[in-house]
Amino acid sequence: MSKEITSRSADYSQWYNDLVIKGSLADYSAVRGCMVIKPYGFALWENMRDALDKMFKDTGHVNAYFPIFIPKSLFEAEEKNAEGFAKECAVVTHYRLKGDPAHKGKLIVDPEAKLEEELVVRPTSEAIIWNTYKNWIQSYRDLPILINQWANVVRWEMRTRLFLRTAEFLWQEGHTAHATAKEAVAEAEQMLHVYADFVENWMALPVIKGLKTESERFAGAVETYCIEALMQDGKALQAGTSHFLGQNFAKAFEVKFSDKENKLDYVWATSWGVSTRLIGALVMAHSDDEGLILPPKIAPHQVVIVPIYKGEESKPVIDAKAKALAAELKAAGIRVKFDDNDNTRPGWKFAEYEMKGVPVRIAIGARDIENNVAELARRDTREKTSVSLDGLAARVIALLDEIQQAIYNKALAYRDEHITRVNSWDEFVKVLNEKGGFVSAHWDGTAETEEKIKEQTKATIRCIPLDNAQEEGVCVLSGKPSKQRVLFAQAY
Amino acid sequence: MSKEITSRSADYSQWYNDLVIKGSLADYSAVRGCMVIKPYGFALWENMRDALDKMFKDTGHVNAYFPIFIPKSLFEAEEKNAEGFAKECAVVTHYRLKGDPAHKGKLIVDPEAKLEEELVVRPTSEAIIWNTYKNWIQSYRDLPILINQWANVVRWEMRTRLFLRTAEFLWQEGHTAHATAKEAVAEAEQMLHVYADFVENWMALPVIKGLKTESERFAGAVETYCIEALMQDGKALQAGTSHFLGQNFAKAFEVKFSDKENKLDYVWATSWGVSTRLIGALVMAHSDDEGLILPPKIAPHQVVIVPIYKGEESKPVIDAKAKALAAELKAAGIRVKFDDNDNTRPGWKFAEYEMKGVPVRIAIGARDIENNVAELARRDTREKTSVSLDGLAARVIALLDEIQQAIYNKALAYRDEHITRVNSWDEFVKVLNEKGGFVSAHWDGTAETEEKIKEQTKATIRCIPLDNAQEEGVCVLSGKPSKQRVLFAQAY
Ligand SMILES: [Zn+2]
Ligand SMILES: [Zn+2]
Repeated sequence: MSKEITSRSADYSQWYNDLVIKGSLADYSAVRGCMVIKPYGFALWENMRDALDKMFKDTGHVNAYFPIFIPKSLFEAEEKNAEGFAKECAVVTHYRLKGDPAHKGKLIVDPEAKLEEELVVRPTSEAIIWNTYKNWIQSYRDLPILINQWANVVRWEMRTRLFLRTAEFLWQEGHTAHATAKEAVAEAEQMLHVYADFVENWMALPVIKGLKTESERFAGAVETYCIEALMQDGKALQAGTSHFLGQNFAKAFEVKFSDKENKLDYVWATSWGVSTRLIGALVMAHSDDEGLILPPKIAPHQVVIVPIYKGEESKPVIDAKAKALAAELKAAGIRVKFDDNDNTRPGWKFAEYEMKGVPVRIAIGARDIENNVAELARRDTREKTSVSLDGLAARVIALLDEIQQAIYNKALAYRDEHITRVNSWDEFVKVLNEKGGFVSAHWDGTAETEEKIKEQTKATIRCIPLDNAQEEGVCVLSGKPSKQRVLFAQAY
Repeated sequence: MSKEITSRSADYSQWYNDLVIKGSLADYSAVRGCMVIKPYGFALWENMRDALDKMFKDTGHVNAYFPIFIPKSLFEAEEKNAEGFAKECAVVTHYRLKGDPAHKGKLIVDPEAKLEEELVVRPTSEAIIWNTYKNWIQSYRDLPILINQWANVVRWEMRTRLFLRTAEFLWQEGHTAHATAKEAVAEAEQMLHVYADFVENWMALPVIKGLKTESERFAGAVETYCIEALMQDGKALQAGTSHFLGQNFAKAFEVKFSDKENKLDYVWATSWGVSTRLIGALVMAHSDDEGLILPPKIAPHQVVIVPIYKGEESKPVIDAKAKALAAELKAAGIRVKFDDNDNTRPGWKFAEYEMKGVPVRIAIGARDIENNVAELARRDTREKTSVSLDGLAARVIALLDEIQQAIYNKALAYRDEHITRVNSWDEFVKVLNEKGGFVSAHWDGTAETEEKIKEQTKATIRCIPLDNAQEEGVCVLSGKPSKQRVLFAQAY
């Protein structure tokens, strides 16, 4: 097969790109930093989106849609909040192209069609949404507002990587409004748990739930909750964040409500989001040098059936059996593909579906049918077994569950092996350099030390785990007293 | 109730705006011409989108996602095609905001962050998609490509109306690539029928399928198929289009394939789309002076249960019964809402759900429970009946079907009454002025006459119906010979 993949050991970064491109998840586009999400990658995203969307609705949220453009002045209103992210963005300044009078067939921006106020393509929607909530909220009866939006957002990035960091990406952003701080904190925590539940149980990727330090917090947040996952190269990846925003946005946009006693107060807020970046995490956490490994619960095809033709005369018999089998699996709720393309050989197909990470492959030929069996191959372990055609659907359902669990367990074992407790600076540096993963170390709690550690090792504090054990110690760099360990890692 | 609606007879246009705003479908935003789709409106769109998406997938299509930005040069490549629409658009010229040195706290566009090439926010995606397909298509084995995209698009509009014409709107755009003209034409026709099926059977809105004349065709299309619906003010609305694009885009972007005989040829294309504009059509076609009327198949809530409390002691009994009833309806697959808010009175709730167009209202009080009945009210006819609580779910399912059909029949009767055959220019003008609707008239087939008619009456040729009867006649304006009638109307 022509689709050679760079191995992880040779070049981890190239291995990742190879998987994304050759696994048909995404492609580069004519626009710098923007990707094309290909049908196979988009089907994966649809499965992820639909599962998340159901979890959001089950927790009382509704979807809505807000404009893609944000007038520049709204960023000025939330200036203190926005400082962290509002700078590198796509700015619309004009609303018309016209023919170039100096060069027939070329277009230029019409200088007469300059906008009075520039519009920013949303990097995130707090500003436009809170500017809208102002009109929707008068009294406690209007609260809570529990809105989510599925949307594209744009952040101008100089160095981009497919899924992990692109100028445009797809995400969901929840924006909720509450009458009390307590309720808003509970919401932010609830959504963190929803994210962890989704990433662990659907994406088979174990995460650590925690709080960001002040310097790693979302601009405008009082508290940022996050889930952190570990990739196979020992780097961490932030898989989702949920922010308790306090009254910051309500104050920036003057959103007040009258409570039951008719007293006016600012509204309390949260926001929370995950993006197509999760696909990057999925690829990097589970896959191997043969291609993608996708968890069955979100894989576009859970099973592929490959017929093994030997001579023309066996084809109708094999096709009939394979089609019946596909129908049986489909009726059992399995996403199955029957690949009867006879331009390509079985070996090519095997490699293709290994590349694409289809969890289970069923190969079936004339002799198999005589013996009432088929060959079942699982992608994660590459084990093959011959199984009876009787009751195959039930067997496949059980196998898909087993694979889902096995992928999770493997990632969990790797992650747990890569949380290293260290008590000295030498150890800290050595573990980061030689082993990677999370380093659990004491920290004196100052942004200054955090910054020094980052400069010297590129490691950041990924999070202060929720329900962190309290333990007396001394900071691994400064030697000052510390009451708890935090998790450091180099990160995507 | 405070939510007064302007009547259709007093001001049709204001009636429409009132319904959209007070029916909680959408709201204005801080960005000129961009709307906020509110949760209730978005739930309606989700139901429409999901039904359409299933129809697309059932006909072999897959979803993907292409960049929101299109480099200016790609519009130059398809210049001849793009002339019709590529001019009024949002143009990104810079990628950074920075603090205004002259005014602390204000932001300005960073003049040093000027893009080398301007980016246009997609008004439609043919250019970026065909520029991508170029890399995906080499041989007939790569065809067909049957891709759909759900996306936001932007067209700078000077005069906007919620849903009907907004700068940003949501839509789907199908872009398919084929090895033969015949296959592409079949695809374009298939998707026209899918649209008609959806609009008639889900939105309860009868449509006429037809072809656009050359002057009304999409720029770049060889043939534009359309479905046309009629609104209650006698104006037509184009509800969807499907284009056979010939080899125009393949030629603009140099997309060739080698066929089975290894000969190179340009690829054949279609594109097709419907948008949130359909929500505007839905509102204008069915609603009345009391509010929205939504077809049950796409209504966010199909049934609302309103408890009638009389005194505190009856509340627990009524709530228990209403909740059991809601659970029963939900189990039967009905989207039901139980409104137990005790801050508002039943009369207010009745008006609210009439406004929102909930197809069926069930009111239930203490005496109803004693008599084992409930009051069933249908929104479309506003009829009320007392029905037994036994077997209520089956009764409601039947009623929802009946309402769906009744709404369609009403719109069909109105539409059919408003197709008027005329044979003289006086008649043509008189019908347009006094009755409205579609005017079926002979036309000489020239763009010149078409343009004159438009200037004099604002009526355009909405379509040449598919399978149009051939009939000798003379053009209603020029008196020249004609072989068929076409449909004229004033339109949105
Ligand atoms: Zn040119
Ligand atoms: Zn300021």
